Amino acid sequence: MAQKITFIGLGNMGGPMAQNVQRAGFDLTVFDLVPSAVKTLTEMGAKTAPSIYESIKIADIIITMLPADKHMRSVYMNPDGIIAHAPKNALLIDSSTISATLAREVAEAAHKNGLRFIDAPVSGGTAAAAAATLTFIVGGQVEHMEQAKPVLEKMGKAVLHAGPSGAGQIAKACNNMLLAIHMIGSCEALNLGTRHGLDPKVLSEIMMKSSGRNWSLEVYNPMPGVMDKVPASRGYSGGFGTDLMIKDLGLAMDAAAGVSAATPLGALARQLYQMHSQLGHGKTDFSGIFETIAKKSA
Amino acid sequence: MAQKITFIGLGNMGGPMAQNVQRAGFDLTVFDLVPSAVKTLTEMGAKTAPSIYESIKIADIIITMLPADKHMRSVYMNPDGIIAHAPKNALLIDSSTISATLAREVAEAAHKNGLRFIDAPVSGGTAAAAAATLTFIVGGQVEHMEQAKPVLEKMGKAVLHAGPSGAGQIAKACNNMLLAIHMIGSCEALNLGTRHGLDPKVLSEIMMKSSGRNWSLEVYNPMPGVMDKVPASRGYSGGFGTDLMIKDLGLAMDAAAGVSAATPLGALARQLYQMHSQLGHGKTDFSGIFETIAKKSA
Amino acid sequence: MAQKITFIGLGNMGGPMAQNVQRAGFDLTVFDLVPSAVKTLTEMGAKTAPSIYESIKIADIIITMLPADKHMRSVYMNPDGIIAHAPKNALLIDSSTISATLAREVAEAAHKNGLRFIDAPVSGGTAAAAAATLTFIVGGQVEHMEQAKPVLEKMGKAVLHAGPSGAGQIAKACNNMLLAIHMIGSCEALNLGTRHGLDPKVLSEIMMKSSGRNWSLEVYNPMPGVMDKVPASRGYSGGFGTDLMIKDLGLAMDAAAGVSAATPLGALARQLYQMHSQLGHGKTDFSGIFETIAKKSA
Amino acid sequence: MAQKITFIGLGNMGGPMAQNVQRAGFDLTVFDLVPSAVKTLTEMGAKTAPSIYESIKIADIIITMLPADKHMRSVYMNPDGIIAHAPKNALLIDSSTISATLAREVAEAAHKNGLRFIDAPVSGGTAAAAAATLTFIVGGQVEHMEQAKPVLEKMGKAVLHAGPSGAGQIAKACNNMLLAIHMIGSCEALNLGTRHGLDPKVLSEIMMKSSGRNWSLEVYNPMPGVMDKVPASRGYSGGFGTDLMIKDLGLAMDAAAGVSAATPLGALARQLYQMHSQLGHGKTDFSGIFETIAKKSA
Repeated sequence: MAQKITFIGLGNMGGPMAQNVQRAGFDLTVFDLVPSAVKTLTEMGAKTAPSIYESIKIADIIITMLPADKHMRSVYMNPDGIIAHAPKNALLIDSSTISATLAREVAEAAHKNGLRFIDAPVSGGTAAAAAATLTFIVGGQVEHMEQAKPVLEKMGKAVLHAGPSGAGQIAKACNNMLLAIHMIGSCEALNLGTRHGLDPKVLSEIMMKSSGRNWSLEVYNPMPGVMDKVPASRGYSGGFGTDLMIKDLGLAMDAAAGVSAATPLGALARQLYQMHSQLGHGKTDFSGIFETIAKKSA
Repeated sequence: MAQKITFIGLGNMGGPMAQNVQRAGFDLTVFDLVPSAVKTLTEMGAKTAPSIYESIKIADIIITMLPADKHMRSVYMNPDGIIAHAPKNALLIDSSTISATLAREVAEAAHKNGLRFIDAPVSGGTAAAAAATLTFIVGGQVEHMEQAKPVLEKMGKAVLHAGPSGAGQIAKACNNMLLAIHMIGSCEALNLGTRHGLDPKVLSEIMMKSSGRNWSLEVYNPMPGVMDKVPASRGYSGGFGTDLMIKDLGLAMDAAAGVSAATPLGALARQLYQMHSQLGHGKTDFSGIFETIAKKSA
Repeated sequence: MAQKITFIGLGNMGGPMAQNVQRAGFDLTVFDLVPSAVKTLTEMGAKTAPSIYESIKIADIIITMLPADKHMRSVYMNPDGIIAHAPKNALLIDSSTISATLAREVAEAAHKNGLRFIDAPVSGGTAAAAAATLTFIVGGQVEHMEQAKPVLEKMGKAVLHAGPSGAGQIAKACNNMLLAIHMIGSCEALNLGTRHGLDPKVLSEIMMKSSGRNWSLEVYNPMPGVMDKVPASRGYSGGFGTDLMIKDLGLAMDAAAGVSAATPLGALARQLYQMHSQLGHGKTDFSGIFETIAKKSA
Repeated sequence: MAQKITFIGLGNMGGPMAQNVQRAGFDLTVFDLVPSAVKTLTEMGAKTAPSIYESIKIADIIITMLPADKHMRSVYMNPDGIIAHAPKNALLIDSSTISATLAREVAEAAHKNGLRFIDAPVSGGTAAAAAATLTFIVGGQVEHMEQAKPVLEKMGKAVLHAGPSGAGQIAKACNNMLLAIHMIGSCEALNLGTRHGLDPKVLSEIMMKSSGRNWSLEVYNPMPGVMDKVPASRGYSGGFGTDLMIKDLGLAMDAAAGVSAATPLGALARQLYQMHSQLGHGKTDFSGIFETIAKKSA
């Protein structure tokens, strides 16, 4: 018999992810507090439920995609939530980006109640959510990840196992902190070189062939005019918002504080994105920090 | 008739580079103030000269590999130096890592005296110098770079044109500043993740497949035990010394100050390598900063 | 009739503070999980109670001095804790250094139960605790602060009102972040000057007479040999431990994240104290960061 | 017979300083390339000279106040400059803010030619220059400083001896780096506290009475509305320009690099002022960095 899947949280990321599940032909029920978000899915053929409780109690697999710790805690841990009401042995997949501490706490509560749980935050942004090319970074048992793969693979192109519960969140925090750092570093290098008269495409090419090489230069060049089809070439619209990067860096800093890990560049990067956001760029792509680094006084 | 090449500066980098020129069968004269450095080359068949002046006046091509601005200035600009005594139309190739300001000044002086000059700093370290796999990053006229290629290609695997005089130095400074940054960023991410129990190889793999990807993770992982044949797996011996990175970051900072470019992560990276050096690690590989970032209190 | 005072938390700070209350002749009951800490006080004439509950239910005034948020939360919010069992209209004084968020939450819970509450963290360290020269920085109603003054003034020399509930904690976090910053700044200036041959006493004098003036130079010079009777002149023993400063900076960073405030120097200072702690200096005075800044390579 | 004084460099600082010398009744000759600057002084009774050479050769005491190293080098070291043409035993007083390296080099050249030289940079800004309340921070022989005092005291309220030649410049660089740091630190603390609802005057008072105390809070509060008669209360006009602070921090960084001194907060402070300048605030008072730290997104 076909597995029943419930998808909770139909925002900018969750909406297109759920659509890909529906398109793949699964028996899908969706839930969100925003009626229009639900409507898009039901018009595609998905079912919905009158309450979160009703959506939970019928599911074999529950996927959640929620904004932050407090929403995740309430959806899972409240008296009317997933841990209390999911059917015995249900597989819980949380793709929210939250703290590893909370992921571990929920995993433990799930296991106590005879439920399976993996943390499976994604890398890739809204475009990848729509195109079903997300990367899932998974914490939890390998066996449970394998059981989740048939549905995860309808939403993404890669499913990577990071370690035990919480490890998916930690690996994502590490990755995004590193991204935050080499993005600013790339901005600094491009600005320094072009102020000395170098052509930014030539300089980018040289650094990509040398030891400065990194993802920001390879696929996401932050300087306008160097690369097509990246946020920098469309006014920094439509990518990964600065405020979302600040949120992720906040999770990284909290994770670092929890284990007394030094992260000097990560801490400074967070401050620089904060200042970039204060200048009015919180909603546009984080690579727009190039403009704050490179700004020329009027 | 075969071109006469003079190579001045036979240190850790210049020595093996000159050996590759000699092995390639060029008519080579070498000069260095250290007799043993000269002897290694003459035993291979190279000629030498009783004075720097004697080595200069006979050359069609002069290659220099010197420690810092002051040596480069003296070898080129002194009354007994290259600008004053190189034969009309000689091709001057400076592979030292020096300031762009000085490279431009020497280029101008060379051009006034009817000499050709390119700045051609290298990327790759002593191992690449020995293996003839350096990358030359060239500032100056493309035509002059092309004329230098036959000999440069005996010492390296790539010759990249960065722009006009000084651009080679600027591009190298930009690249190494970016390297300095993503190396520390990679250390911070690896330390953060492994303190949370992740396997460093797994975490490295995940970040390399995601947006954290960079050269430090791909070919130079700074955490002991992750990658074979990198300095981290041999006690940080034998790579690119921390104090050399500090020198390069100093050049980057000076270049930035000259054009009022903001380099917040570059500036902090320099300070962190400085502190790492102070702890006694100035002579070992710069990726050893992993130990200073990740150190656990006794 | 004399007010009954209960003092909970007799550690490095709370112990000497409670002793000053006892010496002043108040009717004092103390509670701590460590018997030896209690014994010191009972030998001075203080009473104790068989349980925290017993110590709470008899008090007119309850003073708490606890290590961190989790202890404070449990002592106040647990079913056997202060909020549940303090007599109607009791005056609660928390001198712990904790998050403003928790201080506000506890204040609200107290008010709901008809209790008075002030957050009153202290500035001054163990020496000031012993000498009764602490400064109390108070959040809450002015009226309640005035009611607390008779006992606070037996433990300290100043009682400052910062604002409503939580404001004491915020003001302390701001102050200590600023202290953390100018202490490192003073270390950097002293090291820079003395490496150029200046006499540290002369340089300190000049900066104190100029715009560099700050508390670190005036009363707590971090360079050994400049000032008598400061931690720097006794191997950095016996002051304010580096790990305590890291804790306070953590509270400041959390407070900043909560209101999206940029704190670039505060964030970097925290990282530098973290690295100093990693080098084995977590338990010695925070001004010992001079040694990490100024260390000369062997 | 009265000493003949020559004053070279009549800019924003040098102009009012020379006026105070003239008002004190000295036999004064002035020189500047800007005719209007000279005219202000000659209208007050000062003499001038047709060339810098003519102004030099007649002087017992020469005071210079020049913008940067290159001007200072040319006025002193050029063939028509001070070292070549000052009368035997003339007393040279340089109040420019320049590198210690150049100050030492000029001092040595002066001594070789039988001249006395002190570096005497000032603390205090244009208002103090006009009011004759500058502080002179002197490097060189104490005896020479004493000989300069009669004229220095007409321009300032304090003359402090820092050490041998160059020490005046180093002490000023140290002081201003420390000022730059605690100013930003004070901005961060004030912004953090007021975002949590504290009154900035109350918070400033508390920190001034506690360990956060520093000159920025005491006499130059950077937050508008806290203190009268400071730049913050008049739109950051008329104080010490951000770009001048960046220049001073550049000198501090160069001095630090010369002795391999770590200055992590100093380096970051420089970058933050650079970013503040890029936002269009280079010419207004450096305490205006409060606005860049505290900016709220629209």
